[in-house]
Amino acid sequence: MKISLLQLNPIVGDLEGNAKRIIAAVKESEKQCPDLIVTSELALIGYPPRDLLLVKQFITKSWETLQTIAAELNDSPPIIIGIAEPNATNVGRPLYNGAALVHTGKIHQCFRKTLLPTYDVFDEDRYFEPSPGPKILHLRDNVIGISLCEDIWNDRDFWNRRRYHVDPIEDLVKSGAELIINISASPFTMGKQQLREKMLAGIARKYRTSLVYVNQVGGNDDLIFDGRSCAFDSQGTMIARASAFNEDAITVDLTDLSSNRIEKDDFTPESEIWRALVLGTRDYVHKSGFKAVLLGLSGGIDSALVAAIASEAVGRENVSGVLMPSPYSSKGSVDDSLRLVENLKIRSTTLPISQIMDAYDMVLHQEFSRYPKDITEENLQARIRAVLLMAMSNKSGSLLLTTGNKSEVSVGYCTLYGDMCGAIGVISDVPKSMVYRIARWLNSQGNGSIIPESILTKSPSAELRPGQTDQDSLPPYDLLDQILYHHIELHESPDEIIARGFPAETTYKTLHLVKNAEFKRKQAAPGFKVTDQAFGTGWRMPIASKEWYLP
Amino acid sequence: MKISLLQLNPIVGDLEGNAKRIIAAVKESEKQCPDLIVTSELALIGYPPRDLLLVKQFITKSWETLQTIAAELNDSPPIIIGIAEPNATNVGRPLYNGAALVHTGKIHQCFRKTLLPTYDVFDEDRYFEPSPGPKILHLRDNVIGISLCEDIWNDRDFWNRRRYHVDPIEDLVKSGAELIINISASPFTMGKQQLREKMLAGIARKYRTSLVYVNQVGGNDDLIFDGRSCAFDSQGTMIARASAFNEDAITVDLTDLSSNRIEKDDFTPESEIWRALVLGTRDYVHKSGFKAVLLGLSGGIDSALVAAIASEAVGRENVSGVLMPSPYSSKGSVDDSLRLVENLKIRSTTLPISQIMDAYDMVLHQEFSRYPKDITEENLQARIRAVLLMAMSNKSGSLLLTTGNKSEVSVGYCTLYGDMCGAIGVISDVPKSMVYRIARWLNSQGNGSIIPESILTKSPSAELRPGQTDQDSLPPYDLLDQILYHHIELHESPDEIIARGFPAETTYKTLHLVKNAEFKRKQAAPGFKVTDQAFGTGWRMPIASKEWYLP
Repeated sequence: MKISLLQLNPIVGDLEGNAKRIIAAVKESEKQCPDLIVTSELALIGYPPRDLLLVKQFITKSWETLQTIAAELNDSPPIIIGIAEPNATNVGRPLYNGAALVHTGKIHQCFRKTLLPTYDVFDEDRYFEPSPGPKILHLRDNVIGISLCEDIWNDRDFWNRRRYHVDPIEDLVKSGAELIINISASPFTMGKQQLREKMLAGIARKYRTSLVYVNQVGGNDDLIFDGRSCAFDSQGTMIARASAFNEDAITVDLTDLSSNRIEKDDFTPESEIWRALVLGTRDYVHKSGFKAVLLGLSGGIDSALVAAIASEAVGRENVSGVLMPSPYSSKGSVDDSLRLVENLKIRSTTLPISQIMDAYDMVLHQEFSRYPKDITEENLQARIRAVLLMAMSNKSGSLLLTTGNKSEVSVGYCTLYGDMCGAIGVISDVPKSMVYRIARWLNSQGNGSIIPESILTKSPSAELRPGQTDQDSLPPYDLLDQILYHHIELHESPDEIIARGFPAETTYKTLHLVKNAEFKRKQAAPGFKVTDQAFGTGWRMPIASKEWYLP
Repeated sequence: MKISLLQLNPIVGDLEGNAKRIIAAVKESEKQCPDLIVTSELALIGYPPRDLLLVKQFITKSWETLQTIAAELNDSPPIIIGIAEPNATNVGRPLYNGAALVHTGKIHQCFRKTLLPTYDVFDEDRYFEPSPGPKILHLRDNVIGISLCEDIWNDRDFWNRRRYHVDPIEDLVKSGAELIINISASPFTMGKQQLREKMLAGIARKYRTSLVYVNQVGGNDDLIFDGRSCAFDSQGTMIARASAFNEDAITVDLTDLSSNRIEKDDFTPESEIWRALVLGTRDYVHKSGFKAVLLGLSGGIDSALVAAIASEAVGRENVSGVLMPSPYSSKGSVDDSLRLVENLKIRSTTLPISQIMDAYDMVLHQEFSRYPKDITEENLQARIRAVLLMAMSNKSGSLLLTTGNKSEVSVGYCTLYGDMCGAIGVISDVPKSMVYRIARWLNSQGNGSIIPESILTKSPSAELRPGQTDQDSLPPYDLLDQILYHHIELHESPDEIIARGFPAETTYKTLHLVKNAEFKRKQAAPGFKVTDQAFGTGWRMPIASKEWYLP
């Protein structure tokens, strides 16, 4: 038995384009003479489609498109294609998350997802009815169990705590399935593939069934899908794997393993995040209809890393850096930025802001004369720079990238409508300590130091007043990042964090800053998710609320 | 049988404050000698708590607080208090949405919600397990059916399409309930109370049971809760109603109706939205810890209405208007703003922006010299104003209000990081045609014209270039608002809208603008929901996607 896994990069809503992608990949895969061809979850409409699913005519049109695909692939082997299926009754959610079996020019059957993830970035209960029963495909003599993404993430032997009361995989095996297929759109987070492979291998071994897993690839808004579709034999041994972070198609022979391909997958945390962010940036820019990007270069590590990611993602000829020195900018920062521009061979412009600062001072002088200088003046500089960057973006048709890291976005060490401006937060889910690690990894990749060493070694500073450093306002980043990890990713309270040995004052201060920055993050650009708990769609905190833990 | 309904205004997360509110209200209601006292849904933690529910220690602390309440109210009648209950097993979502029965210093029982709304602004499947069975409270000889909010919104005789397969109210009646209690946190939308009362009366009549409905009141972020708790006899006749948009407590005697209070509720759409926005603004400002607000006054209808709402909400002495004329501002606009300031008796400041425009022109001159003038220069003015407003906000500690209406937010006729800046979108869910209606209603309220008549009669204009009017870029607002209603509130496709008789070109253009403004709205301030489909938490569209309906 041979199965082709189509690991495609769909654009959400692009029915025609996605159909073409599927048809082309099927025609290419046919050359391997598979018995069955399988796409990823919702491959025809792209994952996550979000509230597009509430538009009835969109669903209708997607089924018309599926008919067209079926007609076009009349002579192809059976194909399973991810699609949303209308709930024809007048009770329940409007749709099923389905997988349609297409063959001989017709849609024969539609398998429906049972477990509907509704946590973190997922909202599937918003749209879908669950399928109650097991989904079995009889293909010649083979009894194949079909599952969709979350269906396979509830194994009682793998998880201490299970989210759901039923296990669709167990039910498939009880119904006689000898092979499990899982069609997924499983977003990337650091190290998730190891978890997936361990879980999938364990399930194959436990039930003594082969297991085939097809994942989406590509960036869609804040989510990056890493692909890495794979297959396991009934001992839980991996027998095939497609590439990471690229479109791919592999045909797995479940009996004769000799020609199966197992793509290497030896990322470090640094290289894995780098690759993910490059893919995410490329897709966000291109799928939004843009070609070029620009960003402010401060002389700091964050903008340096984002410039490097952008150069790799959309080509250095499509990246512009804008230097906007103020009287508080050190010569070192300007020099570092210029060296970075040279290393990356990107374009750059310098727009000094002191004249504009003066103009604001003049207009605000009378209002502000009775107040001392405070954070207002610092924010003003950040916002002047944002206005310049947006003017450059508007005029040139380039997309502005925002460069804040997760540590500063967490504690609000960033200016709303200032350095937070931009279409996408490239590293907004990367903690500062990881930003350094990725930059050092990049510099070790053999082309000399892309990111000037002085950027890596100097104290981080926003340079919004003379002699300022981040550590005037914040705990050291290594400590801060640990506290943030416990609070944000594990949802721990101050008591729990302090009980782990972290200093009480720093813990309370950090959590207070996180809470008080909620209003900023609500207006932040979307940012690429790379950790288990990113801000944005997966973080839904109230704003006008009270800190429950205060005495 | 007498029941007290506590219609309170909780702050999300403020366990101690909410407990005090509950205790004080119970002690006050006790004077009426009720047999039972009932709060609204999740009254102890405030609705919607969102991801605060994922913080285990917060849940633990809320139960400790409930114990304290129980002890404090040792001698009070039985009380039902809304609270989140941990799911003690290791399967399923972490919590139940519960209602605890507190009496004689103890927590006796906890009733769990069955139907968990997961659509529009609701995400309850994200947090809660459903309760499978009916929830019956035996109180002396009375068999009382307890239901929580959504539990009562699935009646097969009322809805053409039901969201859920079970009807908890039907189950309660089958289990012998002679009285139905529903504890709710049901957010306001225009005209929703009529719908509620019709539905509740119908259910009471159908099952021949009395029905008592307790709703939350107050604004929490984008949601405004209107209160209007009420009770019906077994013929479906209303026998009590608490006030709208205010904290209130009423004690309903189900047998002797003579002393029951039915609060008048004779709002027009205009007065109802006005009251809702006043409450929403007041609570957002105060619950965020602010006292004063400021806003830019353009001389247009939107900022005029928001200034009037703000004056009513936080007191005119806490409202500052900022005029920021450019060379393109008409004298009429400045005069209109000054007249408004005078009518409202608010403070105002004038900060002309031409000097700052010149400074930007100088800095950008070299970059822009080879390009013609375009929208960049218009956005620049809007953003200069935003920087000034944020500087004023930072320096004075006042909250900036943003004044865009739903029509312009829909089609993106607004500048990101410009006029979109602000902590809360006061009228961002109010279509432009309704903005006019509310302003005219306000002027008819007997204190003379608060909003200068010239603001109501002149052509709307952003005044970002000489002679500009909104209708240069947009269809007439009456037409636009109708197309937007069908597209946004009803999720209709271009074909469906055109089939209703709307012009094809305008329809396609409008929908294209809506789609292309998704990236702006993703970074918009939260805005008060007053229609069935607001942007923000209830509108979750992809950004980097394709328009599926294009040929």
